Amino acid sequence: MLQRIGVFDSGIGGLTVLRELRRVFPALDMVYLGDLARVPYGGRSVETITRYARDDMRFLLRFGLDAVVVACGTVSSNSLEPLRKEFPVPVYGVIDSAARLAEASADAGAVGVIGTRATVASGAYERALHALNPRLRVISQACPLIVPLVENGVAPDDPVAELVCARYMEPFRRERTDALILGCTHYPVYRSAFQRLLPQTRMIHVGEALAEFLREEFGGCTGGEGRTEYYVTERSAAFDETVRIMDQTVDPSSIRVETDFLG
Amino acid sequence: MLQRIGVFDSGIGGLTVLRELRRVFPALDMVYLGDLARVPYGGRSVETITRYARDDMRFLLRFGLDAVVVACGTVSSNSLEPLRKEFPVPVYGVIDSAARLAEASADAGAVGVIGTRATVASGAYERALHALNPRLRVISQACPLIVPLVENGVAPDDPVAELVCARYMEPFRRERTDALILGCTHYPVYRSAFQRLLPQTRMIHVGEALAEFLREEFGGCTGGEGRTEYYVTERSAAFDETVRIMDQTVDPSSIRVETDFLG
Repeated sequence: MLQRIGVFDSGIGGLTVLRELRRVFPALDMVYLGDLARVPYGGRSVETITRYARDDMRFLLRFGLDAVVVACGTVSSNSLEPLRKEFPVPVYGVIDSAARLAEASADAGAVGVIGTRATVASGAYERALHALNPRLRVISQACPLIVPLVENGVAPDDPVAELVCARYMEPFRRERTDALILGCTHYPVYRSAFQRLLPQTRMIHVGEALAEFLREEFGGCTGGEGRTEYYVTERSAAFDETVRIMDQTVDPSSIRVETDFLG
Repeated sequence: MLQRIGVFDSGIGGLTVLRELRRVFPALDMVYLGDLARVPYGGRSVETITRYARDDMRFLLRFGLDAVVVACGTVSSNSLEPLRKEFPVPVYGVIDSAARLAEASADAGAVGVIGTRATVASGAYERALHALNPRLRVISQACPLIVPLVENGVAPDDPVAELVCARYMEPFRRERTDALILGCTHYPVYRSAFQRLLPQTRMIHVGEALAEFLREEFGGCTGGEGRTEYYVTERSAAFDETVRIMDQTVDPSSIRVETDFLG
């Protein structure tokens, strides 16, 4: 039984995962941490990503949690094993549950993965998909421009977004990909743009996949109203706008800034 | 007389400033620091920018320097005064010298400024320009997409770059801007794209302007061969490629990683 969990992300994009967890576990208490003072993690080295993820874990564990969810695709794909070894709490990433859902949708045997440079370089999705079915064709594509486009308010139907997405989706179009794993918290914001370019492809929202996996593990709940506490490591001028892009139901003024664990 | 100076930037873009300093002061010894583990600074809060800049200064001052040059437009515009107060060494930013050169080129009285969100929000260029000439019309435009485009190898003549640059340059085209201050280390890489859109406008390279200002202050030198030591706070998979985009004459393997001051 889960009562209180932590959720962390390199920034505020993890709200797209938290929202799916809330839908399945409305009674759960949650503590969210977004490391906005050091975002983005997706272009950094594995050493730096793991170092920052340890800091994030240490902060969350102050709250006495039953489990921690790593909403960040970059941390999930590069640093999950060290976190699981080093911290005395179950740690769930977004990889395995998304791979399972994608594999189940891959009738013609082709799965696509999009993520940050570090996520794609890790090979974590390939390994998880091939563990489920060694004959899957896995096509991976780093999409480093999507996060800055989303964060700067460029809409998915803006010509700049359409041009960038068309390039990134081209390998999946050529390979007639059955399912595409949206392997970074920001990508659900551009889901409509990806779907227009790949009308036959099932889009896999990693937050939905993880929430469904946890429902099977722990059973969901239908009633109750859990509390969420939100923390970030800084608040810039564009903060309120970015929160609204990620989840319009979250009140930016309820999010507290906490920096004392950053050294 | 300058013999040994420090140069720091939020990342590796400061090489575009260092190169101009080397041109004017070939005999100078220099120590460069790029805080790649926490780049970019340009979307962060003033508090975080100043905190990181203090760390960068403390690292550089281990080397016994005559002066420190802040190559980063975001730090120059938001944190120069605290750094000057707190550290016992002359600190030069890129604002005043660029403003001087722009004002001298503004025959019709209109100067444009492009920079990160934090640079534009600071109002530092407006203040510097209006101190020189209160009647100048100053048009400022944050260009947060240029840094990710440059860092991801999107060439200035790529259709995505052209579309983004055309939007950002539109206010300057309308106002027939005499001079445009390229207020971020990455922007010289896109100088040709800006110039195509604004053929009558003088492009102000902040590194060139600062190097000329320091030549007037200290006298340049014609001979000699100074050493440069390069440090960064991390080295990601894309590191070598990013160094090459900024300055093809720098050997990426000569750049050392130093993280112990990051806490």
